[in-house]
Amino acid sequence: MTVPSAYQRLTARFALIATIGECASMLGWDAAAVMPPGSGAARGDQLAVLAVLGHERLVAPDVAADLAVAETSDEWQAANLRLMRHAYARAKALPADLVEAQAKANSNCEKVWRIARKNADFRMVQPHLAEVLRLTREAAAALSDALGLSPYDALMDGYQHGIGADDVAPVFTAYEDFLTATLPEVEAYQARQPQAVLPAGPFPIGLQEAFCRDLAQRLGLDFDHARLDQSAHPFSGGTPTDVRITTRYVEDDVTSAILAVVHETGHALYERGLPSAYARQPVGEAAGMAVHESQSLIVEMQACRSDAFLGWMGGHLHATFGGSAEPYHLENLGRLWRRVERGFIRVDADELTYPAHVILRFRLEQAMIAGDLAVADLPGAWNDGLHALLGITPPDDAQGCLQDIHWYDGAFGYFPSYTLGAMSAAQLMRAARQQVSGIDDALGRGDLSPLLAWLRIHVHGIGSRLDLDTILEQATGSKLDPVAFQAHLRQRYLS
Amino acid sequence: MTVPSAYQRLTARFALIATIGECASMLGWDAAAVMPPGSGAARGDQLAVLAVLGHERLVAPDVAADLAVAETSDEWQAANLRLMRHAYARAKALPADLVEAQAKANSNCEKVWRIARKNADFRMVQPHLAEVLRLTREAAAALSDALGLSPYDALMDGYQHGIGADDVAPVFTAYEDFLTATLPEVEAYQARQPQAVLPAGPFPIGLQEAFCRDLAQRLGLDFDHARLDQSAHPFSGGTPTDVRITTRYVEDDVTSAILAVVHETGHALYERGLPSAYARQPVGEAAGMAVHESQSLIVEMQACRSDAFLGWMGGHLHATFGGSAEPYHLENLGRLWRRVERGFIRVDADELTYPAHVILRFRLEQAMIAGDLAVADLPGAWNDGLHALLGITPPDDAQGCLQDIHWYDGAFGYFPSYTLGAMSAAQLMRAARQQVSGIDDALGRGDLSPLLAWLRIHVHGIGSRLDLDTILEQATGSKLDPVAFQAHLRQRYLS
Repeated sequence: MTVPSAYQRLTARFALIATIGECASMLGWDAAAVMPPGSGAARGDQLAVLAVLGHERLVAPDVAADLAVAETSDEWQAANLRLMRHAYARAKALPADLVEAQAKANSNCEKVWRIARKNADFRMVQPHLAEVLRLTREAAAALSDALGLSPYDALMDGYQHGIGADDVAPVFTAYEDFLTATLPEVEAYQARQPQAVLPAGPFPIGLQEAFCRDLAQRLGLDFDHARLDQSAHPFSGGTPTDVRITTRYVEDDVTSAILAVVHETGHALYERGLPSAYARQPVGEAAGMAVHESQSLIVEMQACRSDAFLGWMGGHLHATFGGSAEPYHLENLGRLWRRVERGFIRVDADELTYPAHVILRFRLEQAMIAGDLAVADLPGAWNDGLHALLGITPPDDAQGCLQDIHWYDGAFGYFPSYTLGAMSAAQLMRAARQQVSGIDDALGRGDLSPLLAWLRIHVHGIGSRLDLDTILEQATGSKLDPVAFQAHLRQRYLS
Repeated sequence: MTVPSAYQRLTARFALIATIGECASMLGWDAAAVMPPGSGAARGDQLAVLAVLGHERLVAPDVAADLAVAETSDEWQAANLRLMRHAYARAKALPADLVEAQAKANSNCEKVWRIARKNADFRMVQPHLAEVLRLTREAAAALSDALGLSPYDALMDGYQHGIGADDVAPVFTAYEDFLTATLPEVEAYQARQPQAVLPAGPFPIGLQEAFCRDLAQRLGLDFDHARLDQSAHPFSGGTPTDVRITTRYVEDDVTSAILAVVHETGHALYERGLPSAYARQPVGEAAGMAVHESQSLIVEMQACRSDAFLGWMGGHLHATFGGSAEPYHLENLGRLWRRVERGFIRVDADELTYPAHVILRFRLEQAMIAGDLAVADLPGAWNDGLHALLGITPPDDAQGCLQDIHWYDGAFGYFPSYTLGAMSAAQLMRAARQQVSGIDDALGRGDLSPLLAWLRIHVHGIGSRLDLDTILEQATGSKLDPVAFQAHLRQRYLS
């Protein structure tokens, strides 16, 4: 028997850690999709135990010893080793008692937040958020020391490795200028269009479910390795060999369930396309949350809301649900599903104004992490910021700073991923259209496969071997370039 | 801060181990109830990792040190400590490489068995079963040394602590005599009865599902801590705060789904009634598989197939599904749902002949573990044994020695639990009727609560503080006494 090399021992260890993570991921899906309401406390314990076990295995002394000596000349293995060292550095930077204190504070705050949001009562959750922020800042400082990044960048790095505030800030500032100029133009353009007509329901849930399942399958999702379920908030979870997406059905509206399914299918297709030869290794994982969002948005926004696909989808919807044909015509569906409107709620926002919601949060969370914005001042800063960006003010905090779970659950530095993903999606789609002929012809037949084949090669199959900018550079010829997104928006909303 | 005592450290350790077990239990439910077919290999890895992590934490040196010195004067804690020592001794007896080899061999054999059963081809799985048996015998020998039990008893002990082959053999021999005398009598009695009439379907699945859910709730299941789903083979799983039962719906038959639900609800009510003050401690667990089966059977066979409950259920079924009233009358439902018939398949057997199936397996598995029966000779021994007990011979091995998963998955010593459970259920029911007035009146209103309240005190709330015989003795005045079961059968099937 040959003695395994340091690298081989590390792959075994990281496979073990990843397998523990898979258990947690499945239990997380269960909690959000099917768990009975009374089981929350026990589930919290289960997830905490898995987190501790995984963390222990990662920060063990033998891992440090192997990481110090492991070497390889293979490109994939080298990337894997680099990511292992990075994961170790992040885990080691945080003392176990801080990790535990954060887990408790986040879980506690999140519970109070649910009630506070329902009651639109920020003060109820304020001390809890202050505690979450205090611990997050402590963690950010520790990570900052270990990684040589600013505290905020050290948090961002946990969601999208290799991207920092200095990369994002100018992109967002440019978008703000673009939005200020473009939004009124789009609103004026929309005002000249005929009123959109809603397809008449009811749309029986069983029929919607079959439609959504069929649609996900057409888009390329293989139900031998996937599930589609219902949950209050659509999400995608699970593991690369068992992806689980959810949606939410409303009997008198066929829109929301379908659009959620195409979005989550994009996430799921990415997971399914990760390099299986590196399954359970850091290099085999998704390349970050911005890349993940680019894959949901390239399917949802770029492909499925394109004229070609909407034209096909309208006919397919009408054939399924019957009634008058007119609401299902492309022009009308476009007016319904591509409507721009200033609103308070991020998750309901259209493509054009969505980045404003992200920019607001990016600026506020940077200020909070820097210690420049106290939690007590958050509601006011939120309302001022939204007004500056979109000219509207939320009627209460439930529609303002209480709307998103992220901060209340300890997730600071995540928000930029949404807009980086939207921009990357536009850039990737432009490149795919240039490189592959017939993408839109296929979309016009409800067929994503030419685009998907291109994404499999240029994004999915890369795993984490490259970072966001390098993925974009190799696939499109340039690093993140917000111009493609702006061109897409002007093309879609002004012509 | 006070230094925790050895006992306190042990409770923390066993709570951790139990929490890891909860993760495995939920993932086991997921695999059987909702997992996509392609995720089996990954799920196997996940469960194996959890098993290893749990086992490691149990056999750790600090556990041995604490077990050596821990002491307590509290009755519950003393029982807990005794069970901890027993769990440690079992885990420590088995070398890690044997545990791993068993896990792999069992999983491999079980996969081949599924195909072999479908093809009725015993020879296909024979070498795999031989390997499983070889490793099981090795494990039994190791456990035998550690526990001072015979190898077969050491395996039984893993399913029902405190019961061995010498306890079971005379009970089973006596039952064989009883069956030989009683079965022809019951068949003659049945032959004089009118033909049973099947309720006319279809029974829409949605309506059946609502009926089953309502029924489980009426029986006492609290869906804040429970789920009801579908699976190919009904089972109950999950954890005490999140019990999950399944059933199987057939559109033209309302019987099978309902009877499965009442059976699994019995299991679930037991889990829900375990002492929450000792949650995640050995003493807070169910008292073994025979006790578990007694709780499913007291609900299914004793309570829900009683005249009183069937009378109520018939009316409730008719009100739900409509059609002709006659098939729902008590006499007819009794003829349908309490029909005795010699058959090949254990899980389809009636109450009277079911023990014959168990006796057969008990004798065969003892012989296999003792080395007196080779795997190659199993099909012949099976057919001879069944013929001796019931006078029938299976047409093929799919309906013979291939029908049950147990051995092919490495479970030897489990089968007696089914019949010990049936006998215990009859004994408990007789005692409950003597001690609590109005049990049958309540059942006649579809109300299990007087019986359930008694079970909560005399069985559920005891956890594992007492063993099977002591539970029975304290609840009914005598240890396991097969006479109650025989009296129940004669009363139900001959009058």
